[in-house]
Amino acid sequence: MLPAIVLDSASDTPLYRQLFEQVRGHIQSGRIPRGERLPATRELAGMLGLNRATVSAAYELLENEGLLKGHVGRGTFVEGAAESSSRIAWEELGDAEKSPPPALSLGSEGISFASGRPDKDLFPMAEFRATCQEVIQGDSATAILQLGSPAGYQPLRQYLLEDARRDGLAGPADDIVITSGCQQALDLIQRVLIRPGDCVAIEDPVYPGLRGVFAAAGARLAGIPVGAHGMEIAALERVIERERPRLLVVTPNFQNPTGTTLPLFARQAILRLAREAGVILIEHDIYGPLRYEGEPQPPLKQLDGSGDVISLGSFSKIAFPGLRVGWVIGPRAFIQRLTGAKQSCDLHSDHLSQAVLFRFAESGRLASHRARILEAGAQRLSAVLSACGKYLPEATRFTRPQGGMNLWVRLPEPLDAAELLPRAERANVNYLPGKYFAVSRVEPGGLRLSFAGLDPARIREGVSILGRVFGEELERVRAASGMTPAPALV
Amino acid sequence: MLPAIVLDSASDTPLYRQLFEQVRGHIQSGRIPRGERLPATRELAGMLGLNRATVSAAYELLENEGLLKGHVGRGTFVEGAAESSSRIAWEELGDAEKSPPPALSLGSEGISFASGRPDKDLFPMAEFRATCQEVIQGDSATAILQLGSPAGYQPLRQYLLEDARRDGLAGPADDIVITSGCQQALDLIQRVLIRPGDCVAIEDPVYPGLRGVFAAAGARLAGIPVGAHGMEIAALERVIERERPRLLVVTPNFQNPTGTTLPLFARQAILRLAREAGVILIEHDIYGPLRYEGEPQPPLKQLDGSGDVISLGSFSKIAFPGLRVGWVIGPRAFIQRLTGAKQSCDLHSDHLSQAVLFRFAESGRLASHRARILEAGAQRLSAVLSACGKYLPEATRFTRPQGGMNLWVRLPEPLDAAELLPRAERANVNYLPGKYFAVSRVEPGGLRLSFAGLDPARIREGVSILGRVFGEELERVRAASGMTPAPALV
Repeated sequence: MLPAIVLDSASDTPLYRQLFEQVRGHIQSGRIPRGERLPATRELAGMLGLNRATVSAAYELLENEGLLKGHVGRGTFVEGAAESSSRIAWEELGDAEKSPPPALSLGSEGISFASGRPDKDLFPMAEFRATCQEVIQGDSATAILQLGSPAGYQPLRQYLLEDARRDGLAGPADDIVITSGCQQALDLIQRVLIRPGDCVAIEDPVYPGLRGVFAAAGARLAGIPVGAHGMEIAALERVIERERPRLLVVTPNFQNPTGTTLPLFARQAILRLAREAGVILIEHDIYGPLRYEGEPQPPLKQLDGSGDVISLGSFSKIAFPGLRVGWVIGPRAFIQRLTGAKQSCDLHSDHLSQAVLFRFAESGRLASHRARILEAGAQRLSAVLSACGKYLPEATRFTRPQGGMNLWVRLPEPLDAAELLPRAERANVNYLPGKYFAVSRVEPGGLRLSFAGLDPARIREGVSILGRVFGEELERVRAASGMTPAPALV
Repeated sequence: MLPAIVLDSASDTPLYRQLFEQVRGHIQSGRIPRGERLPATRELAGMLGLNRATVSAAYELLENEGLLKGHVGRGTFVEGAAESSSRIAWEELGDAEKSPPPALSLGSEGISFASGRPDKDLFPMAEFRATCQEVIQGDSATAILQLGSPAGYQPLRQYLLEDARRDGLAGPADDIVITSGCQQALDLIQRVLIRPGDCVAIEDPVYPGLRGVFAAAGARLAGIPVGAHGMEIAALERVIERERPRLLVVTPNFQNPTGTTLPLFARQAILRLAREAGVILIEHDIYGPLRYEGEPQPPLKQLDGSGDVISLGSFSKIAFPGLRVGWVIGPRAFIQRLTGAKQSCDLHSDHLSQAVLFRFAESGRLASHRARILEAGAQRLSAVLSACGKYLPEATRFTRPQGGMNLWVRLPEPLDAAELLPRAERANVNYLPGKYFAVSRVEPGGLRLSFAGLDPARIREGVSILGRVFGEELERVRAASGMTPAPALV
């Protein structure tokens, strides 16, 4: 069947020419495929209400261009290959802003430590459904379907801001804007604060989505090495002195990918250094609410005396990441500017999800759900730490987070986590190797284990398989070099 | 009550100094307001488990800085004004990317022609609730709460792409990405295609959100004047020749703000001009489905033979603008690039709304709803056109859309729509004056009437009030200049 052909008898372009151009377009775009039989001129003339001579003239032009060929007794066929007639070099637009995560080839039975997502089996479906019910049956259901404010759904903004004020996370000079998750918060911050060539200091290793936002903005990235207790302060001091960064982005709790948490003294030092140098401090605290053990440390925003710290939060890790709702709290003038950028980006965040998450929080269901995921998380954390101690080769080091979703493993030299990944995948287990998180330096032995999405039995099974894969390789390498195992350094 | 104070005895900073810094911070940020009485040293030492001398040392430092003052017999009070101690010049970040719409000061009884939104009284609440029910009770409810693909919710992508293929709006080389409304589609296109200094050709007047996206990207904007039949082709030809734009953004149907529609010959001419000059053509067709009368014109994407046209769509105008779901269809390599930018911006669009709108469309409810809004829209269009003819002063000109939400009025000289707005607002009616839509040239007499959100009686009442306001001003001006009314030019 022919695609639509629409002719305009009032046009300056003659009808035969219009017909020719449209059929040619359809052939070149592949909508009329090569080998297709076209209607006979008489038939097409009847279909389109045209004079038969008009159709013949168009067919002649098409034949001249090598796009049609007549076969005696059989009819007229599309001859031209469906080559693209595109005038735009789409393929040359360059790479996407950030490299995609590695293709992970596990079957459904595989054990994936690659994904830092909540466990969907822990989603409180009954509570979610009840929340949706209340929202869609409620008085504000009509209002949430209408266009809203770029700053966010007002009841949610007010709820979050009051909550932050109670916790000392928002001062009287602060305001809030709702974003489509923390990723958009970072992107809006980039748009408002960063010009190409500005330096942005970030943890190294770091979540690639955070690195990618600032790289796409043309920022110079300065990676601050992460030790056992988060960002190394001496390194930060050097970077601030040498690079005068415009921004410093800190994930104070259960940093992704390392799982490390900044102690109080480090938080105070970071505040002091940023304040002295006039560096804008972004506190990216999406894992803080997932503390399974130990005492929480005060947020930088709470310790801050200047009122300049910008605080980022999100529902993604404590509720439902598919509902894209995060927020930024900071000085009012800055939030206004961010709200302007938000409006330019997408008018406002989705209302339905904002209303559902507001109701989920306000009803107390979020707190109950969080209590359940903290309980599950504690078991999973304990499982992954004991499994790492038990199964990974001696001399492997790993962080000991007290919450969050991730821990960081450093394989003994000369093991390379990226090279070993295909072998692990053949054994039906995967993870993300260190290179995906690197800023200034790659740790070949580094890898991230995301444990929060797996139950303890799967965690133990997965780590034991990894231990076998890594151990075999280590033995092979040592046998080849005649080395003996080093004592444990954990 | 004091905000949280958290001290770390393991820190290198002495405790008195930590206490001093934190209290100072709280005073400077206003969290401890001026005039507040602080606990006595003994009392605070007890609260914090500190030696009393530690607290005294901290208070002394605070007093030295003028932040505290002791009053005999009454206690210790916060003295320092809660001046900001901010180190960052937040106020100097500059203006937001686009100017906000004018402050509109109508009461709830006012008649607003200012807002191009669907009428919330037409929202099919029962159908929306039933749709949500099906989604949250359905098998995929758990999956939609999990993180998803940056390209969008797969069932929705497939549904829209198949729909587009059936309508000749997507060829075999095309793909689709779901965006958070058309605004985000424009922003992603800007990110991928525009570098500062590139020329972007857009209609003049145009929707400010469209203009703002490209202005914020540092593009040079070339406005193509809009006549009674959309973008003027001769002007486009001149701009293409002189400015070599990278992009041309066309709203082919019921353009915002003018309500005009491009006839077929103009569509063909635009395609030819863009193709010859290698200009990337963006078809921004969010009003096309809202045709109340007359015959639809084929979309540019359907007429295009090159496969290069990029097509933008959205549910906002035909369903619920508070659910932020739009899409882009275009060449696969381009959509891949856009999907990378999307991931960097916000990971993916909200899943719940994508799933609800998918179900709303797939169940046939969208089509039924559209039939109802087309019926209401036809009545409203007819009401606004007849009211404009009847009530606006002679020599006023206005467009005659066959669909959409807006029409464009040109007041006779020397009336200025922006100057007259406060007077109209005092009479409880408003609109948006032409200057908010201007690209290269302002029409002082131009104004937009958004009629789709008002029922016919309100439309007639509102236009009759505007007619009186404009007519009185015209009489006043003419009386002052001794002119006599000109004959109608409509």
